[in-house]
Amino acid sequence: MAKIAKRSEDYSQWYLDIVMRAEMADYAPVRGCMVIRPWGYAIWERMQRALDDMFKATGHQNVYFPLLIPQSFLEKEAEHIEGFALECVTVTRVGKEPLEEPLVLRPTSETIVWAMYKKWIQSWRDLPLLYNQWANVVRWEMRPRLFLRTTEFLWQEGHTAHATAEEAIEEAERILEVYRTFAQEWMAMPVLSGRKTDAERFAGAETTYAIEGLMQDGKALQAGTSHYLGQNFAKAFDVQFQNRDGDLQYVYATSWGVSTRLVGALVMSHSDDDGLVLPPKLAPIHVVIVPILKAEADNAAILAAAHRAAESFAEAVEVKVDDRDNVSPGWKFNEWELKGVPVRIEIGPKDLAKGQVVVVRRDTGRKTPIAQEEATARVQAILEEMQGSLFAKAKERLDANCRNADSYDQFKHTIEEVGGFVFAPWCGRPECEAQVSDETKATIRCLPDEAEACPACMVCGNGPARRVPFARAY
Amino acid sequence: MAKIAKRSEDYSQWYLDIVMRAEMADYAPVRGCMVIRPWGYAIWERMQRALDDMFKATGHQNVYFPLLIPQSFLEKEAEHIEGFALECVTVTRVGKEPLEEPLVLRPTSETIVWAMYKKWIQSWRDLPLLYNQWANVVRWEMRPRLFLRTTEFLWQEGHTAHATAEEAIEEAERILEVYRTFAQEWMAMPVLSGRKTDAERFAGAETTYAIEGLMQDGKALQAGTSHYLGQNFAKAFDVQFQNRDGDLQYVYATSWGVSTRLVGALVMSHSDDDGLVLPPKLAPIHVVIVPILKAEADNAAILAAAHRAAESFAEAVEVKVDDRDNVSPGWKFNEWELKGVPVRIEIGPKDLAKGQVVVVRRDTGRKTPIAQEEATARVQAILEEMQGSLFAKAKERLDANCRNADSYDQFKHTIEEVGGFVFAPWCGRPECEAQVSDETKATIRCLPDEAEACPACMVCGNGPARRVPFARAY
Repeated sequence: MAKIAKRSEDYSQWYLDIVMRAEMADYAPVRGCMVIRPWGYAIWERMQRALDDMFKATGHQNVYFPLLIPQSFLEKEAEHIEGFALECVTVTRVGKEPLEEPLVLRPTSETIVWAMYKKWIQSWRDLPLLYNQWANVVRWEMRPRLFLRTTEFLWQEGHTAHATAEEAIEEAERILEVYRTFAQEWMAMPVLSGRKTDAERFAGAETTYAIEGLMQDGKALQAGTSHYLGQNFAKAFDVQFQNRDGDLQYVYATSWGVSTRLVGALVMSHSDDDGLVLPPKLAPIHVVIVPILKAEADNAAILAAAHRAAESFAEAVEVKVDDRDNVSPGWKFNEWELKGVPVRIEIGPKDLAKGQVVVVRRDTGRKTPIAQEEATARVQAILEEMQGSLFAKAKERLDANCRNADSYDQFKHTIEEVGGFVFAPWCGRPECEAQVSDETKATIRCLPDEAEACPACMVCGNGPARRVPFARAY
Repeated sequence: MAKIAKRSEDYSQWYLDIVMRAEMADYAPVRGCMVIRPWGYAIWERMQRALDDMFKATGHQNVYFPLLIPQSFLEKEAEHIEGFALECVTVTRVGKEPLEEPLVLRPTSETIVWAMYKKWIQSWRDLPLLYNQWANVVRWEMRPRLFLRTTEFLWQEGHTAHATAEEAIEEAERILEVYRTFAQEWMAMPVLSGRKTDAERFAGAETTYAIEGLMQDGKALQAGTSHYLGQNFAKAFDVQFQNRDGDLQYVYATSWGVSTRLVGALVMSHSDDDGLVLPPKLAPIHVVIVPILKAEADNAAILAAAHRAAESFAEAVEVKVDDRDNVSPGWKFNEWELKGVPVRIEIGPKDLAKGQVVVVRRDTGRKTPIAQEEATARVQAILEEMQGSLFAKAKERLDANCRNADSYDQFKHTIEEVGGFVFAPWCGRPECEAQVSDETKATIRCLPDEAEACPACMVCGNGPARRVPFARAY
């Protein structure tokens, strides 16, 4: 099996090699589109299940809005259409017949959702509506990259309607916290979180909140966003309700989403030069058992032991016996390392004789012989420990890559030579933000709740300023 | 709450009233498209979960292929494009820029799947591929009807690749059996099953198998199809593999799908003039508890008892307490009957005094007082019984509506005046099938494995013939 590229030599190729060679995804014939293969989709399914449970536990219900949106709807919220106009993929005919009004494939669903909310919301008793959908969306992508940026992607989008601004803001913040918890506890990916600047705000939002991860090449990756939309869409679609005092008032809104981009973030969070490393909570298979077949005489006994072991694991974890006879054990080791299965178990003639199995942990490579009867409990403990230690390692990396810069020169040097999040003083003016972005390709990733007060902006020198995290980002 | 239409007076309106008033779905602004609301989507989610488990138990893996298919791909299989040409919804521009090649929104994914299979299949060791995807598809619909026929619908589509015809046929038949089992055991909907005639075959298939339900108005409804595609798509996309003998050979294929149409079939299978009736296995809520609040003094104690009861149920079933204070108990009864919740529990002052609850079953309306401490176990038993009795009742209706006709006159009379499945002798010629369809709007629903041999076709009088089920269908 040919090696994948090394992270240190060609990070982009390393990422691509893992995604392609672990058979997570492949390029589709239409530019910018991808096919998600079983291994990639199984990871996405586990993400979906965990997130869906969290959404339901916070009172949300799933729904489905249509893919096709009349072009005129998108034009009703001025900032919104400005943000999406160039990416809109548009249907103009059916068979050979032209359509009267062009239909846009949803780039996001606020407009169709609020057109429907107008039918469903009359009184404060109809509120809140706490809806979510799992769907595909389409935004024409000029620089596609598997999972990270594709013309069509899968996501969930929440769309909620509230009687007050306070309640809507609370919802947007609650979801940010759900995303943060999911990233940290499931993906083992530590994140910064906070509001976005106006320049980075979602087209049509009052406030955008985001979680931001840090990849191994020192670039940031926006992993989820939650928007407080104020009354913008309610006004665009004339959605009013009668409040408790009998007065008509526009409805307040939020929307929020995470996408298959998270799979790309997961790949880049923990993987190494041998391939994918998966946190156990999101691994489609936790344990792969590789029988070490050598002397023909032992093979039947070893295969039987492998299948017995698999049975004993099956209640506790997802387990697979790799009993293929056309590839060597070493080839199998490489393949399952490439695919990121957290634990490999080897059973050979000597192990059989000693009543043991050899357990190999994917992230550390540590090999431990374990007595057969203790194997299930010990492997469960190893998986739990691995989930925790992947997070700890990623957190250490994040912390080590959060640096302060006080002057613009120091800032430029750190961004260019070191990478990571660079916390630097900013006055809050869009002009200074734009200048940094133009000159360094680094953007303000979020505005943390408790940002250090500083006397002067690193760009214009005016005060007061706050210390905010900049980074180059995916 | 205004009544819904009566089945006996206006069946179509009755169906629509249930779907709209139970808030299962609503019309979208684009003609032919629908919005699936929380109650409808929760039912679909339960269907998905059950089917997905069955697919995985039979060795299938989930994947995701892109929505956008180059128009030229669809044209590669001649019969396929002929079948779908008029329904193809086509993208021609992005933003204001025209596309070089028009892209079709997938009406079904065989073409894009087989374009990718060409990349992934080289040897017999790569086979079988047993893939499934949950996705939206788009076919322009001239006569839309919520859930039953919509321009965009949600479905699953399986696409498998095999080394031999036998194995592929076995797969197509295995899935037909999965669909039959799901329809009968989960939806409580008995079905006929068998092959379709050539006229009713999927565009591009060698053989189409289907399950066919019978709705309460005597019309049949095709509820799921499984296709043996032979080597048609492998040839269209040049997908060959090296077999065990080292020879190159085209791959054999199947495809199969069920859609949100099943939700419509479910509505029409069991519901009555009070609204939806749901089989417990697919009900989003099994038990609704309605506290009967009267004398202010008792209310707190009754509400507390309702919530205590809910807690005791929560481990075993999905339960909801309807503690709204702005509508009467009677209004709530009607609403939950309309929504099809299988069991209602009433708790009033007298029940509280007696240490009992009153359990009301949705399908029979039977009221039973049950001691509080026995309630959970008794309700579970009632739910199980209800699942079985809904199937038994539907089976009785199906059996009563399977009639034989020997002459064409008798056939026409039965189709026109009585409906249901009419089993009549057919010689096997497409001309006779077409004549029946033109003259009576009845079509052959399937060719059962064991069809009675008959001396002569009811249409042309030629023999030999077989007795096959005709019906008017959705």
